[in-house]
Formats: sequence, structure tokens, C-alpha cells
Amino acid sequence: MIEDGFNITIVGFGLMGASYAMALKKFHKGKIYAIDIDETTLLKAKNRGLIDEGFTSAKEPLKDSKLIIICLYPKLLVKFIEENKEYFQNDAIITDIAGVKCDYIEKIDNILKGKADFVSTHPMAGREKQGMDYADADIFKNANFIIIKKENNKKENVELIENLAKNMGFLRITKVTAKEHDNIIAFTSQLTHAIAVSLVNSDDEKFNTKLFIGDSYRDLTRIAKINGELWSELFLENKENLIYRIDNFIDRLENIKKGLLNDDKEILIKEFKESSDRRDKF
Amino acid sequence: MIEDGFNITIVGFGLMGASYAMALKKFHKGKIYAIDIDETTLLKAKNRGLIDEGFTSAKEPLKDSKLIIICLYPKLLVKFIEENKEYFQNDAIITDIAGVKCDYIEKIDNILKGKADFVSTHPMAGREKQGMDYADADIFKNANFIIIKKENNKKENVELIENLAKNMGFLRITKVTAKEHDNIIAFTSQLTHAIAVSLVNSDDEKFNTKLFIGDSYRDLTRIAKINGELWSELFLENKENLIYRIDNFIDRLENIKKGLLNDDKEILIKEFKESSDRRDKF
Repeated sequence: MIEDGFNITIVGFGLMGASYAMALKKFHKGKIYAIDIDETTLLKAKNRGLIDEGFTSAKEPLKDSKLIIICLYPKLLVKFIEENKEYFQNDAIITDIAGVKCDYIEKIDNILKGKADFVSTHPMAGREKQGMDYADADIFKNANFIIIKKENNKKENVELIENLAKNMGFLRITKVTAKEHDNIIAFTSQLTHAIAVSLVNSDDEKFNTKLFIGDSYRDLTRIAKINGELWSELFLENKENLIYRIDNFIDRLENIKKGLLNDDKEILIKEFKESSDRRDKF
Repeated sequence: MIEDGFNITIVGFGLMGASYAMALKKFHKGKIYAIDIDETTLLKAKNRGLIDEGFTSAKEPLKDSKLIIICLYPKLLVKFIEENKEYFQNDAIITDIAGVKCDYIEKIDNILKGKADFVSTHPMAGREKQGMDYADADIFKNANFIIIKKENNKKENVELIENLAKNMGFLRITKVTAKEHDNIIAFTSQLTHAIAVSLVNSDDEKFNTKLFIGDSYRDLTRIAKINGELWSELFLENKENLIYRIDNFIDRLENIKKGLLNDDKEILIKEFKESSDRRDKF
């Protein structure tokens, strides 16, 4: 799909960056570079054959890359592009993995002003653990991949990203605007994390909880082990949408509480029937 | 561990009853009978070698059994014991799998009045699907098992149940009073189901949600496919505890909302740190 000399630089070699490298290595013919502040990580990555070369500064790899995949926290993503704008090839494609979009895309497009093409994406995959040691190409298998619709992107660049995602194992690729993305992601991603955190924290700890849990508690709290720096950014950048989603959720939970207070079995059965029917569709 | 002629009857051959049969068949030397209203299920169970004999009425198998494992909904559990009291052997052990305890144990002890020994238990395992076709002995592997402390139980009968649970693959066996059980289970089991149901039902369905989900939404909503009859019973029978747990949970979620409204990153980071530390202990 991609001609010789099409080199890729991955910026930020944590769990996601390293998983990208693993997935790309399986089919990509060109070089794969990594930029990270941690030299040990870069050395390990090279020794394991995940990358062709590692760099702690951006100039060299960026000048030699057609595609740059930035796997940094949203705020660092903007900073990286700002500080290294001059090194991107004019026709390079820049892409990202950030979990919120509206704010950053505008900022980045304003920095780039037509230099390179920023195709923004959100791979709906990850792990509750951090670092390249937990990386795994399989996290992308059959996962959802979102591409943000932007009028200024070149059609062929969007297609290239789409093909890359398919080759990496993603199943469904969906295109929405940044606004639509932030609206629905507040529900499927940020609300779920807010719930998991609140569930664990609402434990009054009068019992040794782990002796009394089954799969349901385990499943609902897996993501309560959470990267605070990253997620506080994601929450705050998408706060209007997330507050709306929290309110809707509490309304429905209050409805169950009402059913309990009034000994109203019908309310409960109605809620259970609705959730079962909806969940069945997935 | 158990002498010859120690036969077991499983009452209710759904997912749990059939999984019990599968786990018991691996080591139990005596006969295993099943009682169910569905003859087709019993025939299938016998053909698959899960049971020695199936019955649609209780008299025959109960008269021939030392241990009766009742895998029915809580209300039907009481009804079954009431209607079949006369057929239990005087020194039989009766056990159950009900997810709430306080109310039923008192009722059952009042019915039995010393005939047979009711050792009440709660295996913390299950599946979101119903019926023997989804049964699997592996659901008990490394799961938690709770035995309710009751002053009127014979020590040797409690030990027998404990050994049975270990042989079935349960990892941690914990003894608590019925009151303690209902208190903590409202948190680890009923609250988690209330949350999953409310999460799915709070979807405003303006998007095709399944295109935007990752593992977090999948994990948090798996149990939203829920048996309404069973869970409305469990919720209502344990309503005071569950309401207390819902209130605590909403308080913590409101704290996150407060952090969002005030752009207070510190509140968010504090909540995330606490949940990560707590979750790490499991």
C-alpha cells in the first residue's frame, strides 16, 4: 500500500506508541522511528525489534518521515507540534490518538497553517496499565477506530490512515466531526471512567471487599486504576459533555432508587428489560 | 471426603444448577439428581452425563439425598422447602445460592424447625446468560464463596459444604452473618448491576453507540443484560442496604462533577489516585 521510503515516526513510546509500533512492524515496509524522552525505553524498543531507531530529539526523524503518529497526552501533543513545526516535511501526515478533539484540533491547525496534514484519529483501544512493557498489537484487533472529519484534510491522506487502521486490525472505522466525537466519547469513555472511579471510592471499607466480589465488581472497576494526569485533562477538556452525561446517568440511577423506595417492582423490571434489550444490540 | 450412598439433589437446573452438576461430577462419587419443571432440560442433562437421574417432582430424589442444593430464585427457594418439607431426610443438609440472605434464612429456619440443616451459601460466580446450555464448571475457578454464619448449623455440615466448595474450585471461603452478607453484597453485586443498567439506559441514542465503544464500555455494561425477575427480587429484598450504597456512590460521582464545574483538577486527581490505590489491592 505504501511506497519505499515511506518512514513513520511514533512520538511518545508508552503503551499506545509501542503497541502501534508492534502492529505496524507486521506489515509496514519502511522504517519506524520513535521519539521519547526516556533513552532506556528507546534502547529496549530497538533491541526488541519494535523500531529501527530511537531519538530523544525530533529533528532527524521528522525530516525523514512521511507519517508522524503522536501518542502523547493532548496538551503535550499541541506543545510537540508547536515546538517542532519546522522539522515536519511539507507534505507529511500527522496523526494522533487523543481522547478529546474539539479544542486541540483547532489549536493544531492554527499552528500548522497548512504545513503538513493533520488527520486526527481516536483508536478505541488501550489498557489500564502504562508503559511499553504492557504493549500488545492485539489490543487493536476488532476495535473501533474513529477518524475526525475535517474539511482541510487531503482525501488520499485520510484513505492512507484508514488503510493503516485496517491493516493494524481495527474492525470498524467511523468518521465524525470533532464535536460529534467529543459528545459520544463523553458517554462511552469518560463517563465509564468516572463511574468506575466513584464506585471504588464509595466503598465504606467496613469489610475486606475482595472476599465478596464476583466478576461484576471486577469488570466494573478494572478501569478505576487510572492515569490521573491524562484523565483529568480529558475530563476537563470535555467537561460540558461529561456533565451532561453524568446528569443523565444519575437520573436513571435515581429512577431505580425510586423503585426501591416505593417497593415498585414494575419500575425495576422496566429498567432491566430496557437495558437488556439495548445491550443485546452490541 | 464423602461416604458411599451420599447422594446429592440439585433443585433448579438452570445456569447455576447445571454448573454445580458439572463441577460436582468431577469428584463426587455418589449419585447426582436434578429436579426441574422442564423435562427437556432434564433429559438433555442426563444424556450429557451431568446427572444420574432427573425428576419433575421432589419426593423420590429428596428421600434418597443427603445434600440438597437449591438453585432457585429466593422466593421459590422458600416455597420449595415449604412444599417439600416432609420429604427431606431428618439429617439432610440443605444449601442454597441466593444473593440475599436475611429475610429468607429466617423464613426457612421457621419452616424447617430443626428438620434437616440449612447451611446457606452464596457462590460469587455466574454469567449474564441463562440456562443449562451456558453452564460451565469453570465459572467457580478461583471465585469467592460465602457461607452464612448461623448458630443452629452443625459444625460437620458446614465443614462438608466448605470442602465441597474447595473441590469445586472456589478459592476464598468466607464466613459472615446474614446481616453482614446483605450489607456488603449490596455494594459488590447489587450496586454494580444498578450502575450497569443505568449506564446503558442513560444513552440518549443520538449516535450508533457501538461504533464508539472500547473495552471500558463493554466491561461496564456486560451485566446490563439482566434477568429482571430475579434481580428485582434481590434488589427489593435488600433495599435499605442498596439505597445506602447508591447514595454513597452518587455522592462520589457528584464530587467529580464538582471538580468539573469548578475546573478543579486537584479534586479529579485526588479521586483518581484514591481509586487507583484501592483497585491495586485486589
